[in-house]
Amino acid sequence: MSNTIGQLFRITTFGESHGPAIGVVIDGCPAGLKIDTEFIANELSRRKPGQSKITTQRKEDDSPEILSGVFEGVSTGTPIAIIIRNSDQRSKDYDHIAEKYRPSHADYTYQEKYGLRDYRGGGRSSARETAARVAAGAIAKLLLKEKGIEIKAYVSQVGSIVLEKSYSQLNLEDIETNIVRCPDVDTANRMIELIDETRKGQDTIGGIVTGLAIGVPVGLGEPVFDKLHADLGKAMLSINAVKGFDVGSGFEGVEMRGSEHNDQFSKEGQKIITTSNFSGGIQGGISNGQDIYFRVAFKPVATIMKEQDSLDIHGNPVKVTGRGRHDPCVVPRAVPIVEAMTALVLADHFLLNINSKL
Amino acid sequence: MSNTIGQLFRITTFGESHGPAIGVVIDGCPAGLKIDTEFIANELSRRKPGQSKITTQRKEDDSPEILSGVFEGVSTGTPIAIIIRNSDQRSKDYDHIAEKYRPSHADYTYQEKYGLRDYRGGGRSSARETAARVAAGAIAKLLLKEKGIEIKAYVSQVGSIVLEKSYSQLNLEDIETNIVRCPDVDTANRMIELIDETRKGQDTIGGIVTGLAIGVPVGLGEPVFDKLHADLGKAMLSINAVKGFDVGSGFEGVEMRGSEHNDQFSKEGQKIITTSNFSGGIQGGISNGQDIYFRVAFKPVATIMKEQDSLDIHGNPVKVTGRGRHDPCVVPRAVPIVEAMTALVLADHFLLNINSKL
Amino acid sequence: MSNTIGQLFRITTFGESHGPAIGVVIDGCPAGLKIDTEFIANELSRRKPGQSKITTQRKEDDSPEILSGVFEGVSTGTPIAIIIRNSDQRSKDYDHIAEKYRPSHADYTYQEKYGLRDYRGGGRSSARETAARVAAGAIAKLLLKEKGIEIKAYVSQVGSIVLEKSYSQLNLEDIETNIVRCPDVDTANRMIELIDETRKGQDTIGGIVTGLAIGVPVGLGEPVFDKLHADLGKAMLSINAVKGFDVGSGFEGVEMRGSEHNDQFSKEGQKIITTSNFSGGIQGGISNGQDIYFRVAFKPVATIMKEQDSLDIHGNPVKVTGRGRHDPCVVPRAVPIVEAMTALVLADHFLLNINSKL
Amino acid sequence: MSNTIGQLFRITTFGESHGPAIGVVIDGCPAGLKIDTEFIANELSRRKPGQSKITTQRKEDDSPEILSGVFEGVSTGTPIAIIIRNSDQRSKDYDHIAEKYRPSHADYTYQEKYGLRDYRGGGRSSARETAARVAAGAIAKLLLKEKGIEIKAYVSQVGSIVLEKSYSQLNLEDIETNIVRCPDVDTANRMIELIDETRKGQDTIGGIVTGLAIGVPVGLGEPVFDKLHADLGKAMLSINAVKGFDVGSGFEGVEMRGSEHNDQFSKEGQKIITTSNFSGGIQGGISNGQDIYFRVAFKPVATIMKEQDSLDIHGNPVKVTGRGRHDPCVVPRAVPIVEAMTALVLADHFLLNINSKL
Repeated sequence: MSNTIGQLFRITTFGESHGPAIGVVIDGCPAGLKIDTEFIANELSRRKPGQSKITTQRKEDDSPEILSGVFEGVSTGTPIAIIIRNSDQRSKDYDHIAEKYRPSHADYTYQEKYGLRDYRGGGRSSARETAARVAAGAIAKLLLKEKGIEIKAYVSQVGSIVLEKSYSQLNLEDIETNIVRCPDVDTANRMIELIDETRKGQDTIGGIVTGLAIGVPVGLGEPVFDKLHADLGKAMLSINAVKGFDVGSGFEGVEMRGSEHNDQFSKEGQKIITTSNFSGGIQGGISNGQDIYFRVAFKPVATIMKEQDSLDIHGNPVKVTGRGRHDPCVVPRAVPIVEAMTALVLADHFLLNINSKL
Repeated sequence: MSNTIGQLFRITTFGESHGPAIGVVIDGCPAGLKIDTEFIANELSRRKPGQSKITTQRKEDDSPEILSGVFEGVSTGTPIAIIIRNSDQRSKDYDHIAEKYRPSHADYTYQEKYGLRDYRGGGRSSARETAARVAAGAIAKLLLKEKGIEIKAYVSQVGSIVLEKSYSQLNLEDIETNIVRCPDVDTANRMIELIDETRKGQDTIGGIVTGLAIGVPVGLGEPVFDKLHADLGKAMLSINAVKGFDVGSGFEGVEMRGSEHNDQFSKEGQKIITTSNFSGGIQGGISNGQDIYFRVAFKPVATIMKEQDSLDIHGNPVKVTGRGRHDPCVVPRAVPIVEAMTALVLADHFLLNINSKL
Repeated sequence: MSNTIGQLFRITTFGESHGPAIGVVIDGCPAGLKIDTEFIANELSRRKPGQSKITTQRKEDDSPEILSGVFEGVSTGTPIAIIIRNSDQRSKDYDHIAEKYRPSHADYTYQEKYGLRDYRGGGRSSARETAARVAAGAIAKLLLKEKGIEIKAYVSQVGSIVLEKSYSQLNLEDIETNIVRCPDVDTANRMIELIDETRKGQDTIGGIVTGLAIGVPVGLGEPVFDKLHADLGKAMLSINAVKGFDVGSGFEGVEMRGSEHNDQFSKEGQKIITTSNFSGGIQGGISNGQDIYFRVAFKPVATIMKEQDSLDIHGNPVKVTGRGRHDPCVVPRAVPIVEAMTALVLADHFLLNINSKL
Repeated sequence: MSNTIGQLFRITTFGESHGPAIGVVIDGCPAGLKIDTEFIANELSRRKPGQSKITTQRKEDDSPEILSGVFEGVSTGTPIAIIIRNSDQRSKDYDHIAEKYRPSHADYTYQEKYGLRDYRGGGRSSARETAARVAAGAIAKLLLKEKGIEIKAYVSQVGSIVLEKSYSQLNLEDIETNIVRCPDVDTANRMIELIDETRKGQDTIGGIVTGLAIGVPVGLGEPVFDKLHADLGKAMLSINAVKGFDVGSGFEGVEMRGSEHNDQFSKEGQKIITTSNFSGGIQGGISNGQDIYFRVAFKPVATIMKEQDSLDIHGNPVKVTGRGRHDPCVVPRAVPIVEAMTALVLADHFLLNINSKL
């Protein structure tokens, strides 16, 4: 039940880290959308391991194969299935944890929930699953682009290094100019340094990704349970290692007075705008036409190269030390994942909203 | 589509603030559960307006009527419908906003999305809708209690007054001893003072509610999209005025190293535990048997008694001043709502988990 | 889970025959639809007991109360909740079956599935639940009417009395001219006589209702699992006492050759038509713009006034004799129910289809 | 939206007839089920074309590849994805219909609904899609077998040749002894002769498949909309070429009196049984422990080798003549498909029922 998200633009992902393939079925993409396969591949390469010195050195060949739903380069309205074969599988790297629970991993909970688990590379709990999300998100982005909606994300915090500027003070074109994906070059350099140093210390560190959607029309989001930010929040919290989400003023807004926080309506030519945007572009759960922005908090990666205490599946105390190739900080590669999940939620709500009025 | 939440323990709410009634249909409650109507009424009275000097003085008669699904005091497995009649409706209090958009309210987005709106008391966007959630949540709590799961919530921040102790350092029995629902008496008094002062200044202020689930068995939560904390996050973010959610170490965990943050497994007698709990009781999206705890950030209430600039539905500039009776701070009354949404998510995942293994 | 039907135009029904009320929540009705309450009441009166000598003489006061989702006579896009209070409840009529399983009723299966049951009047399994469907179906009809879609149903068989003419040979205006709702007066009279005679013999008899949808645009229905006739079939088979469904040529088409059965395309002015319509207006699961027609088979009502062998809930042999007031034949009152379910399925598919292409 | 069926045991199929592959994702299969790949392959070979002189001579290599969800031969609780590569694709056979609407096919409705279509071999509307259902159904069968539930289907009518015996008078072991899959050898021979003769006449003919589920426990099926036979009906009506479904006494029961039709309860040792079974093993939408049986009506295959009148996509009159290799009668190959859909529905309801009572 848990491998599907979306109501009208709906995706189902499948696949384990070290099985034959991972993949996704996208059901509900309207017919007539030009499917730019190069764009999909490019999005996947932004997520893929081994892209820089501050990401895992593991190599994954993320070549997507479209199995269905596209005819002569255009979506047909039938499900689009995409698979990505697994390769460079050093399953042996995982033999040492076949019977051990890695701290703060999903080993123990999967074992208890299912009575068994595919321990190789974390199996289904591996972040490799997010490649399927990125592939599907690329198609959602293509759909949204047709509707004038653009999605961006960038790293706004690594450890205690905080990007102090807000998105409107930044040149978002600079996001991809550096390997940490922070649009402020100075801050980016400090972040890179911190990650590199953490990696050398055989440790890991957390960070924050800021997400942004521009050009969203008024009306997306459903009242009550499927509020736009509630669905965005769920989508973000479903990404591996995410521990928090806030939108607009978020946790900081807690300290504000209503008189400061309220976004007053005004007009810019014929367009209704708000003179501030503490709402984060969403009011009553529904987009109000202003920029949507939110933060996603990632914990430090659980796999560390230091020895830790743990238990094996029989309940005996054991020592666990990370092996293989892992990210010292997940946020640089999380940027395209945050974008993909944003695109999936917005595409779904775009289709849902079409039926709001007669 | 947006008025339903849950897959197996599924609720659908309905009703506007100033219509004849609000209500909820609970579908999927197993047969054989004793339905304690006094408990439901008590939960509603914890949410209801007018309960203290720091909440709105509006009176609502929150008397629930069970229309179906209960026979001789026991659930029958068929849908349980509960309605609460609206009364004390001063609809006239809202005539002045029939054609005006209140800043940071849902007026503008509803009007644009639907082409019309029931403006009386905010209609469907009114926090009165949460009474239906609390009624349903009470039944979820009764179900969870049978399974040994207990849910608590309390106010941990108002404006910049922060409750510095963690839940394990507090006596949770003290939550209901004061009107702000903070289990630390000193902090509670300072919070009450701040709210009272804010109210006198015709303003409002935000706050944070901490939620807690104790006794949750290992295995609740589904991998990938329906991770337990993703569903909790969505449920919380769907509550009016919520702008943020984090679980376990949350936003603070961002600054930690993996070596500090990892929760190492150990044994307490025969029970597997973790020696720290930065994970917040959830690993890989699945409960690990430790306490689940999370924070929910509420913005300051949008209705203030001060004059603000805005537009009317024709796009003309207008002045808006709040009338009627409103909360200066939403968190004291939000405590039972956070508990209710927690119970609904856990009840649903409890039922979902039963089919995990053969 | 079972009390909801529809994806975008979605209804949830609740209520037991002898509880306080039955009702329905309609979620997904677009805003801006004029809600004609007289029409809803009229549809309910077509279903209600006691309307003629060939229906049950039980009286039910089917007065619908709209609790939400309608403001100033127009749908607001929020859930429309309608309740119908139960009255004239002769619960005592059912005391004799509190511990007995009536043959071919749901008593035994409910008792086993749920461990208990509300035995009064069949509880949730009572056909009274269909009043909620008719109320919701009335709103779906109002929506479809705006789109030029008309729905009709009539009795085409009672026992072995078959209406030999097809719908195109009949004057459908005559359906409501007689109490059995068969548009051919001669056949209607024979049907009425048979039902009356059956009733006098303290027995019951089955029948067939033919359903019809005219003016359905091309494109409704989704390929693969949610084919238009698959969803119509499920909706019909979910009505109490229904044992069969076929569409177009149906069971008779089995004996035909492809060369006879194929509907050849042609043009009528600029409109694409088929020169025959064995497909019943649906090809590949999708409406083709021709009339949609189908049959719904109802078994004889299970409650008979004759003594029958059965068991009690302890497994002891008992005698059961029907009491109270029951229909000798269900089809005259089933006509509006078949129409309602047809309207609900078409309204849902109408909304679903809007997103088929970019 | 239409490519998914099931709530807890949920499948999503994808793929076009002449694309790279078709496939299915099974989400919700409990962990710990032994996955017998040979059994899956065998089920697929019962469906596959070219298996006898009375089926299409087209060859399809139905080799399933399991991509995920199975570890060391056992289900892990994560989604099981299976793909089947397409081969022997004579796409050129379809060039002549790229711009023509074949009568009683899905060409016209797909073209109108989606604005374009993959015309090769019918694309998504091809019966090749059912191979994905059979693969998933095989896994559902393995699950049901663990629970003592057995599923069978056989051909009970071809054209006007009717198998007069009921399932209880037949030796079901004989189903697979002949190429038409009718357990009565004499009738089977007459059916084979009729199909062969029809094929030689370049025509096609319809037929009926009877489905059967034995050993179903009491309690499967949900009241109201998701009645067990309503879900079975939908599942069957979603199979290509199906025009009708009835359960138990079905359309014939219409002519019966209640006193004949009612199934009286009795005991066989300690087991509660009914002395007749006109209900078809389902009462009030819930299985009663008796055998479940139903009929599925298939129209004659639309592709015939005779010339027919039609239109092209520009609305011009054209002649269409079937080419390629097609079935003269679909029922022999439909038997495993009916079984698969039965298994999928029962597996889903088996899991749903587990939560009926506390």
